[in-house]
Amino acid sequence: MLERKRIAINQATTRTQWGFRDAVEGYSRHGVKGIGAWREGIEELGVRVSKKLLDDNGLAVTSLNRAGPLIGLDRKAHLAAMDDARRAIDIAAELEAGCLPVMPGALPPQSRDIGGIRAQYSAALAELLPVARASGVVLALEPLHPMVAADRSCMNTMTQANDLCDALGGGLGILVDVYHIWWDSRLQAEIERAGKDRIVGFHVSDWLVPTRDFVFDRGMMGDGVIDIPLLRSWVEQVGYSGFVEVELFSKDWWAKDPEQVVQLSIERCLTVV
Amino acid sequence: MLERKRIAINQATTRTQWGFRDAVEGYSRHGVKGIGAWREGIEELGVRVSKKLLDDNGLAVTSLNRAGPLIGLDRKAHLAAMDDARRAIDIAAELEAGCLPVMPGALPPQSRDIGGIRAQYSAALAELLPVARASGVVLALEPLHPMVAADRSCMNTMTQANDLCDALGGGLGILVDVYHIWWDSRLQAEIERAGKDRIVGFHVSDWLVPTRDFVFDRGMMGDGVIDIPLLRSWVEQVGYSGFVEVELFSKDWWAKDPEQVVQLSIERCLTVV
Repeated sequence: MLERKRIAINQATTRTQWGFRDAVEGYSRHGVKGIGAWREGIEELGVRVSKKLLDDNGLAVTSLNRAGPLIGLDRKAHLAAMDDARRAIDIAAELEAGCLPVMPGALPPQSRDIGGIRAQYSAALAELLPVARASGVVLALEPLHPMVAADRSCMNTMTQANDLCDALGGGLGILVDVYHIWWDSRLQAEIERAGKDRIVGFHVSDWLVPTRDFVFDRGMMGDGVIDIPLLRSWVEQVGYSGFVEVELFSKDWWAKDPEQVVQLSIERCLTVV
Repeated sequence: MLERKRIAINQATTRTQWGFRDAVEGYSRHGVKGIGAWREGIEELGVRVSKKLLDDNGLAVTSLNRAGPLIGLDRKAHLAAMDDARRAIDIAAELEAGCLPVMPGALPPQSRDIGGIRAQYSAALAELLPVARASGVVLALEPLHPMVAADRSCMNTMTQANDLCDALGGGLGILVDVYHIWWDSRLQAEIERAGKDRIVGFHVSDWLVPTRDFVFDRGMMGDGVIDIPLLRSWVEQVGYSGFVEVELFSKDWWAKDPEQVVQLSIERCLTVV
């Protein structure tokens, strides 16, 4: 059984019901020890005040969502996005976040050049890495499901993430989200390749059959077809012992009482994860 | 520019408008030389009569759709599916089809064991291969997009298809369908790994942004984000010189006049493929 202290919740899970303060206090009230935090509410409240709120509620920031999208933009927008990413690195450092996910971005209108976009993403990461290393912030690659390769992210598999880590050296990590990569025949091999040093997070939700939306129809753990305990055993076999983070992008769960969503998330973490 | 004689059309493209005879005569009328044929209409008409109809219209059968689903079934249904697959091999041989795609099948209800299903698929192929080899029929693996891994097919990448070919030896081929695999960062490498001997077909359509359905919203070539000429250059660099087959599963295109769909398909093959 998962130790309670390893349970974290990403704010995406209560995205429409709770702002930052509500989420921090709500998760904490249920005994949760980690939060996947979103920048918007933190910047609104102020980073220092946010840090105190987190500390007072005994919550670690697993990841700060997020830097990017960085690429597929015109030059001016790209430069602004890079500046914003550097600001995100500063905030992640102040909050002592476990990592900072860096989103690549979508294919720009009329483009069919996913290879080119991937090269731009690599170049942008290479530019940010010295800043991140100096601040002690790990930049996280998060493979997103190939069904969103065109319109959300060109980073789509563990293989691709490992290749990029190989190419760019230290300072990068990989967020393993079971929803996006459960189907991959190379998954166990690529988790082994990533190893303890690269894996900076383990996100859980479930793949529903049928799935009715390309982004907002994730299932509660146990309601779908992903063998989450098996995948967790794979990351733990290579030494991962960090948070297991519930991240539910779901119109269905967003329509429910957040107290119940959090309670059920914890219950499922203790029984089917 | 693609040579006209290399254009084929899969009956899926006019699935709701034309039966087998209409499709054969219709494609032929537009100068098409290859058809991805579906068993239903052929078995209704009789295999010998169908073969004569195809010959009279100058159409080669690129692939016979299909054997399977074979797995994720109870024992009785599995045995029936294997018998049906042997019958499909016989028909493919009689029609001199370029290949016979073998569909694995969906995860059965309550199952979370995609690894187990993949092992069953491998075992079923191993059982069919001697029959296929004796008949001179190539069994084709077709990687389908990971978004349908749970409910349609557990064969999802070129990597996985190549791994299976390595494991099972001769008599297997790979159908390269750009719609399913365009997003894969390993695509070019895996096409090279497959080489001329394994690639038995090249299917084209396009990935639309946004995509509104997990199965029936493929785009006409040129209307989406896939760099089809680049992907075609990759298969041709390893020596593939066979048919380029239009396969449009699309509620939109099924609602249109099939004469126009076929004409536009050919036009797009000559301009953007």
